[in-house]
Amino acid sequence: MPSMVEARFQSFDDLHTHTPVLARVVALRAELKRRGLDGFVVPRADRQQNECLPASEERLAWLTGFTGSAGAAIVLTERAAVFVDGRYAVQADSQIDKSMFAIEHLIENPPQQWLEQNLKSGARIGYDPWLHTSDSAEGLRKACATAGAELIPLDGNPIDALWTDRPAPPTGAVSLRAPEFAGEGVTSKALRVQAELGKLRADASVVSDPQNVAWLFNIRGADVPHTPLTLAFAIVPREGRPALYIDRAKLDNKVWHAIEEFATVRAPNELVRDLAQLKGKTIRLDQASAADALTRLIADNGGRPVSGSDPIALMKSVKNYAEIAGSRAAHKRDGVAMARFLAWFDAEAPTGRITEIDAVEALESFRRDSGLLKDISFPTIAGSGPNGAIVHYRVTRASNRAIAKDDLFLIDSGAQYEDGTTDITRTIAVGKPTEEMRDRFTRVLKGHIAIATAIFPEKTSGAQLDSLARTALWQAGLDFDHGTGHGVGSYLSVHEGPARISKLGTVALRRGMILSNEPGYYKTAAYGVRIENLMLVIAAPEPAGAERPINTFETLTLAPIDRRLIDTRMLTAKQRNWIDSYHARVQEMLDPLLDKATRAWLRAATKALGD
Amino acid sequence: MPSMVEARFQSFDDLHTHTPVLARVVALRAELKRRGLDGFVVPRADRQQNECLPASEERLAWLTGFTGSAGAAIVLTERAAVFVDGRYAVQADSQIDKSMFAIEHLIENPPQQWLEQNLKSGARIGYDPWLHTSDSAEGLRKACATAGAELIPLDGNPIDALWTDRPAPPTGAVSLRAPEFAGEGVTSKALRVQAELGKLRADASVVSDPQNVAWLFNIRGADVPHTPLTLAFAIVPREGRPALYIDRAKLDNKVWHAIEEFATVRAPNELVRDLAQLKGKTIRLDQASAADALTRLIADNGGRPVSGSDPIALMKSVKNYAEIAGSRAAHKRDGVAMARFLAWFDAEAPTGRITEIDAVEALESFRRDSGLLKDISFPTIAGSGPNGAIVHYRVTRASNRAIAKDDLFLIDSGAQYEDGTTDITRTIAVGKPTEEMRDRFTRVLKGHIAIATAIFPEKTSGAQLDSLARTALWQAGLDFDHGTGHGVGSYLSVHEGPARISKLGTVALRRGMILSNEPGYYKTAAYGVRIENLMLVIAAPEPAGAERPINTFETLTLAPIDRRLIDTRMLTAKQRNWIDSYHARVQEMLDPLLDKATRAWLRAATKALGD
Repeated sequence: MPSMVEARFQSFDDLHTHTPVLARVVALRAELKRRGLDGFVVPRADRQQNECLPASEERLAWLTGFTGSAGAAIVLTERAAVFVDGRYAVQADSQIDKSMFAIEHLIENPPQQWLEQNLKSGARIGYDPWLHTSDSAEGLRKACATAGAELIPLDGNPIDALWTDRPAPPTGAVSLRAPEFAGEGVTSKALRVQAELGKLRADASVVSDPQNVAWLFNIRGADVPHTPLTLAFAIVPREGRPALYIDRAKLDNKVWHAIEEFATVRAPNELVRDLAQLKGKTIRLDQASAADALTRLIADNGGRPVSGSDPIALMKSVKNYAEIAGSRAAHKRDGVAMARFLAWFDAEAPTGRITEIDAVEALESFRRDSGLLKDISFPTIAGSGPNGAIVHYRVTRASNRAIAKDDLFLIDSGAQYEDGTTDITRTIAVGKPTEEMRDRFTRVLKGHIAIATAIFPEKTSGAQLDSLARTALWQAGLDFDHGTGHGVGSYLSVHEGPARISKLGTVALRRGMILSNEPGYYKTAAYGVRIENLMLVIAAPEPAGAERPINTFETLTLAPIDRRLIDTRMLTAKQRNWIDSYHARVQEMLDPLLDKATRAWLRAATKALGD
Repeated sequence: MPSMVEARFQSFDDLHTHTPVLARVVALRAELKRRGLDGFVVPRADRQQNECLPASEERLAWLTGFTGSAGAAIVLTERAAVFVDGRYAVQADSQIDKSMFAIEHLIENPPQQWLEQNLKSGARIGYDPWLHTSDSAEGLRKACATAGAELIPLDGNPIDALWTDRPAPPTGAVSLRAPEFAGEGVTSKALRVQAELGKLRADASVVSDPQNVAWLFNIRGADVPHTPLTLAFAIVPREGRPALYIDRAKLDNKVWHAIEEFATVRAPNELVRDLAQLKGKTIRLDQASAADALTRLIADNGGRPVSGSDPIALMKSVKNYAEIAGSRAAHKRDGVAMARFLAWFDAEAPTGRITEIDAVEALESFRRDSGLLKDISFPTIAGSGPNGAIVHYRVTRASNRAIAKDDLFLIDSGAQYEDGTTDITRTIAVGKPTEEMRDRFTRVLKGHIAIATAIFPEKTSGAQLDSLARTALWQAGLDFDHGTGHGVGSYLSVHEGPARISKLGTVALRRGMILSNEPGYYKTAAYGVRIENLMLVIAAPEPAGAERPINTFETLTLAPIDRRLIDTRMLTAKQRNWIDSYHARVQEMLDPLLDKATRAWLRAATKALGD
């Protein structure tokens, strides 16, 4: 029951941070002056470009109070700005002191452009080369040059010099991923990486993305919330033993010995020393996560840094048999929790007595009942009525809203189980939905089905499929402003590259990749709709006369889609069949695993359309 | 009648060129040695990266005998290679002496990669900076650096030193485009360009793409086949008069005076001198067409070259009212010629007495009968049976094939009229098509209709629409290996950027753009199918509740689509309606303009499906 459970993995803290911004900005300006600088760039980033940051890396929040998951600040002598994207416009407005910072649009007026327009000729602008990729630093350098200013890499971040109560870096314990879940040993993975390095004519690769470190060494950690990452680097030479750079405090003896079987464990500060030895060598760096400091370090010591995609990214995205079996099992387990949640919600919501937070806590408790929940895979997005229209809504005690009759309720959540990561969104009608809601929901559903049933040749990218999710909305002059799908890790990041289904998804979809399918529709200040399942890329049956190998998707997620929101008249026969057969499969898979009441609820919820 | 007409705008010459390759390569190697070089890169390019080259610029063909429209060669001391793409594999095989040149795949093993693998450390490789964009030169430079070699810009192309009978550059007469066709004056266009330069913070722009020069000055020329271009450069300063760099011999007094009203006419060799004066100025260069020599020249003289898209490219692609009216008129005129051609073909082809060349000549003669044909817009592709499967087939006396019973016949052609440029492909059944042919044709048609009827929000790119043309083929394990559509000029290039409907078409489609819609299917050594119409991007009617401006297409091309090849059972009701209403419009628009026999033929060819 929701009033008796409490969420362990999610906090509902207010977004207001009571940051003493004035004092901090004044102190930063004094520190910059001391160093002979006219400005400093503060990205929301750590040394590995992680999406989830440990508290020790939240420099942007420390300085500005802004806690969104993307952004940057620039502090000049006389002015300062915070850059946030459209998702965070409202949050930025409430968190940022506008007497100290102008709020700028991260995409439409990005830091580079702002620098070009605001720098004086001759200005000296500092940046911390550990917190920017080389591409990012290069963009800033060009902008400074356009304004006749100079961009200067700093030794030591000026904020760290001022941040006296800065938390220590995390030292979460590292565990080994069991072979039955990992499906491939470290030796085999390392050999595959080394074969790629041979093709790329690189002498070694720096593995700077902790997701790739986790995959390569079959290790999981506890350094950031919701994703079992350990913050560590690795170097894979073209031949010989890889080295893992990690705080020894994170490894118990068993784990340490297991890793030492395949790799050399080194202290984090030895990374710089080791890279400095690689004179004359071609060193591959991950364009997306490697710090500019690494590029500079290698070049300064006579090595040849070459930037590109880390070959591990693609290998990791193609799941092996064990990972696929694990994901199927995880989705069945998660489907049970979702069925229990949806049945509970259908019973409780119409009473008007439950809130968004109640729903979040109930869902987490149903997942915990499995006994296997390691964490939620991200803070649950539970938006009723107008809150549903906020794409990245996180409920707080302040924003928490009672779920009202005739609301739409959007809930986007996921679980971390040792065998797999889940991510699911359902939109539920409380009371009687309007005709417009049913029209919008059905258009979103048509898009979801178009993706789920797509058949496409090998080498097709996610970008080529994205519009299939939109045409039913486009015809009504509607759309949604996010991608259709992202890659998902195997007991790893819920957002995993390199493939995605979006305008920007240029990577070819391969058999074994797991991606989300989550078209939506958002009516500002009214309601939101999103329908999300995870899918596995599989071979499609080859019709007679086929000339090219073709692929399609297997839907992994098992939970009913709210039939009350479907306007059956808007569906083609094929679309109706898809819904009915999906529901039949959900019912068949989950039925044996449910208590009697939930089973009855599920049978009703998965009836054929029109029944 | 075909036997009495002759094509004036197309030649059917054999592709075999009798080039004395051995002597030329030997001479080039001697010349390189004399200059202290170990190799030289020969792109198929002129100083403006034109698609159609004048004879004086055909250095690749002079050296290698290869006459395809894309390619490059590299000559080293001990080896040499020609790089061609998949379209030209067969042609390259017949034209290139493989004892002199290895044939490499332009995309899969491009020159950069080949250089990395074949250069010796310390090698000095020359390139002509006038024939490469800066991006291309940069790619070669990196490849040379990887191999420890050096890329050296040359003063004077070594081939020009050897090519004793090199034709003079063309001096085709320039004409003014009449205001009723151009629709906007030079002053207005120049002001719009200057406003963009202000936004881009550029002091001036070098207009290096002759298509953009033609648009800006409302001039047309006769320097290359099939496209009314004059090879000329321009400089547009942020304020003041533009300068046009052109051979005075191309201008009669009337044209010269007309241009001098808005611009200063300068001799071609004054471009270099004038650019050298722009010390301290920010000069915008067109990334796609500006020679690396321009970048170097500006930088060497203390200016700041900034590479990006020429703002004219986008302006030119959005047609104004006069250009749209002109295109509609041109398509009506072209539709008459197409109807006469198709009627003639239906009568003649079953006799077995006509050939591909007869068809090309007949179609050109029907177009010439309009009295307004300026040129064909490209060499007609007329492929019967297996020749239809060669996407860029050009019939020669040697390849010419009699059109046989039960062939499919693919004809892709276009016209240059003063009011507009056309481009149309039809696939015609001779005798009885097989079930497979009808299945493939109908799938291609479904893709064509999906594009023609697409409704999409403002800012949607061609890349987002491309897959709509393919899903019906994908479902059968089929696809086609070219883009779905390209931009088309207004009495200008039949391939016009920057928008296109293809995986690579990242530019947003805007109202007023004209694009082709040409999905296809090719069964090697058997037959080819392609259905191509030109379309205009227009506003779509806004449904109630629409939240975003939406666009759709108006089909401009007017010619029946072969009903005998349509398997009506495979079409949805909406698709059948589209064909029927398209055919009704074709019939209604062309009927009053036709002779009696063609009129009767057209009535039958445009009957409703199932009638």
